[in-house]
Amino acid sequence: MLQPPPAEPGMREEEVDTPALLLDLDAFEANLDAMARLLEGTGTRLRAHAKTHKSPVIARLQMARGAIGQCVQKVGEAEALAWGGVPDILVSNQVVGATKLARLAALARIARVAVCADDAAQVAGIAAAAEAAGVRIPVLVEIDCGAGRCGVEPGPDAVALAERIAASPHLRFGGLQSYHGSAQHRRTPGEREAAIAHAAAVTRRTVEQLRQRGLDCPIVGGAGTGTFALEAASGVYTEIQAGSYAFMDADYARNEAPPPFRQSLFVLATVMSRAIPGVAVVDAGHKAVAIDSGLPLVHDRPGLRYDSASDEHGKLLVEDGEAPQLGEKLRLVPGHCDPTVDRYDWYVGVRGGRVECLWPVAARGAMA
Amino acid sequence: MLQPPPAEPGMREEEVDTPALLLDLDAFEANLDAMARLLEGTGTRLRAHAKTHKSPVIARLQMARGAIGQCVQKVGEAEALAWGGVPDILVSNQVVGATKLARLAALARIARVAVCADDAAQVAGIAAAAEAAGVRIPVLVEIDCGAGRCGVEPGPDAVALAERIAASPHLRFGGLQSYHGSAQHRRTPGEREAAIAHAAAVTRRTVEQLRQRGLDCPIVGGAGTGTFALEAASGVYTEIQAGSYAFMDADYARNEAPPPFRQSLFVLATVMSRAIPGVAVVDAGHKAVAIDSGLPLVHDRPGLRYDSASDEHGKLLVEDGEAPQLGEKLRLVPGHCDPTVDRYDWYVGVRGGRVECLWPVAARGAMA
Repeated sequence: MLQPPPAEPGMREEEVDTPALLLDLDAFEANLDAMARLLEGTGTRLRAHAKTHKSPVIARLQMARGAIGQCVQKVGEAEALAWGGVPDILVSNQVVGATKLARLAALARIARVAVCADDAAQVAGIAAAAEAAGVRIPVLVEIDCGAGRCGVEPGPDAVALAERIAASPHLRFGGLQSYHGSAQHRRTPGEREAAIAHAAAVTRRTVEQLRQRGLDCPIVGGAGTGTFALEAASGVYTEIQAGSYAFMDADYARNEAPPPFRQSLFVLATVMSRAIPGVAVVDAGHKAVAIDSGLPLVHDRPGLRYDSASDEHGKLLVEDGEAPQLGEKLRLVPGHCDPTVDRYDWYVGVRGGRVECLWPVAARGAMA
Repeated sequence: MLQPPPAEPGMREEEVDTPALLLDLDAFEANLDAMARLLEGTGTRLRAHAKTHKSPVIARLQMARGAIGQCVQKVGEAEALAWGGVPDILVSNQVVGATKLARLAALARIARVAVCADDAAQVAGIAAAAEAAGVRIPVLVEIDCGAGRCGVEPGPDAVALAERIAASPHLRFGGLQSYHGSAQHRRTPGEREAAIAHAAAVTRRTVEQLRQRGLDCPIVGGAGTGTFALEAASGVYTEIQAGSYAFMDADYARNEAPPPFRQSLFVLATVMSRAIPGVAVVDAGHKAVAIDSGLPLVHDRPGLRYDSASDEHGKLLVEDGEAPQLGEKLRLVPGHCDPTVDRYDWYVGVRGGRVECLWPVAARGAMA
């Protein structure tokens, strides 16, 4: 259930109980500022993705630096944001099922809430929920711009679905969702450019076909931390949905020409066993740090390699330099930031070696 | 933070909101009965591992069927169990740090609590915490019986640490912890037999050396769901620490001669997109189902293959038979049960197609 906070403001970082989700506030703020600068003059705005941070506190800090709103993937995430004062939320995903849609429609009374669809049956469900709640909900058509996961075919199929949305008195046509997820982690700039050139081309064509049918796109949204500069330069996207840029992770750092942001998110771990020569075991295994995109790195300790993760143990090999002491605390750089955050109830914000704040991961576990 | 329950008792399974952690109660109870039967007459007792289930409700059901207590890996898990009425708890792991040890010592006033050590500094820390709390804590020596992660060398090193424990007025020597984790998933019976033959041999030798120094082992503990029959037959282990047997998962099912238990744990997911031909996307990605030991399987639908997991999406390929409908609910068999459970706040217990109970995953996220 809810875990107690692992620290108190004013503590030294070494006093924080572990495993803990550390946020280096200087690096985090620098990332928010860097993204604001990078989007200046591009004509696109940031709608930061809260699937990464799951926190209305962080959402509001992003909006104070120019983000126009937030994306989420789940209704439960939208609730956490709306209840925490975020006024403009796009569910960048399909929502299926009457229970979830009723919750979404209820939120539309306290925040601007939009959602995506790639099927006429979804549109009918959203319209029914909106009608029952007495609200009008903007719906974006998701197109498959190359990822092959969700989204209708760009072009006529998308136009047909948009017309169906626009025809409902309980909905508004909200524009296009055109996100190429797998392009974010393609390793070379050339591969990413090719993927986004294709995505932008099919999106542009669909925008034009919609315009010919009298349908303007209030939002053309997509992009993530690996490719946002390409979508921003395309002239077709109006909103950028990057999330990881605020935190970064080891997997993004493996991109050639990696995104220009600093690592701000860490898992603080304690060395709990030094019984095996050449091995240091930390108290953070894969229940504490996501390994879907590779193992974590040990921050600032190049001679230590996180070699394998079991549920509650991380086995580090001492490859060079001094071995860590039993009880020593180490910062780990997560392989993947989003699912790592989702394992924790609290951010421990640190600056200059001291705990400055505790922020709840308000949408931790919000899968529905 | 804490998520609302996805169901109410009496609902039909198809009405449960998703993603949800389903427990098939008939299969679960059959597994508890099967383990009790399998250990009958072996001279070993079950101390079930709560790292898997994280629930005092399940712990008490296991104990009602013969388990003598519970294991945990973390102090937070021990707290959840002790607060939920479990009287006998072994932390089958090292605990490092004054904060955690003070919490552990506090628990010793309401439950029998033991802990492991593989370093003299840990022993000193436990003794200090026990002294401060006015309790006496049994400490087991963990030996490395082949996994190469934690644990002192079997033999004289273990004896020396045991003597140090026995010499403290605030501790008791609790026996040996001898767990070979990686042996559980070795695919062939021969590989598992070889690993446990080695583990049992070094454990037996250490037990004998301890006895020669006048130290009896109240507990000789280890084993998991993949190998417990071997440890139980060894004549040296007194306690079996299996956890997964209650739930099972796709990875254990890949063992040759898999453990003789039924799949009782599922993630219920909803088909949320059918826009791409031959593809069905469900609302359970790797935030909802652990993929560290492989992707989930689609239960009872051999023509559907869970092909890839992103954070919030599972992409299924329709390889044969009828494609699932948008909105259809599917049971997924997790690749790995323990970390999957740890992503949820609630078990939804089902029997005969109806929700019978909701049980909190009380130690969800208890990493400290």
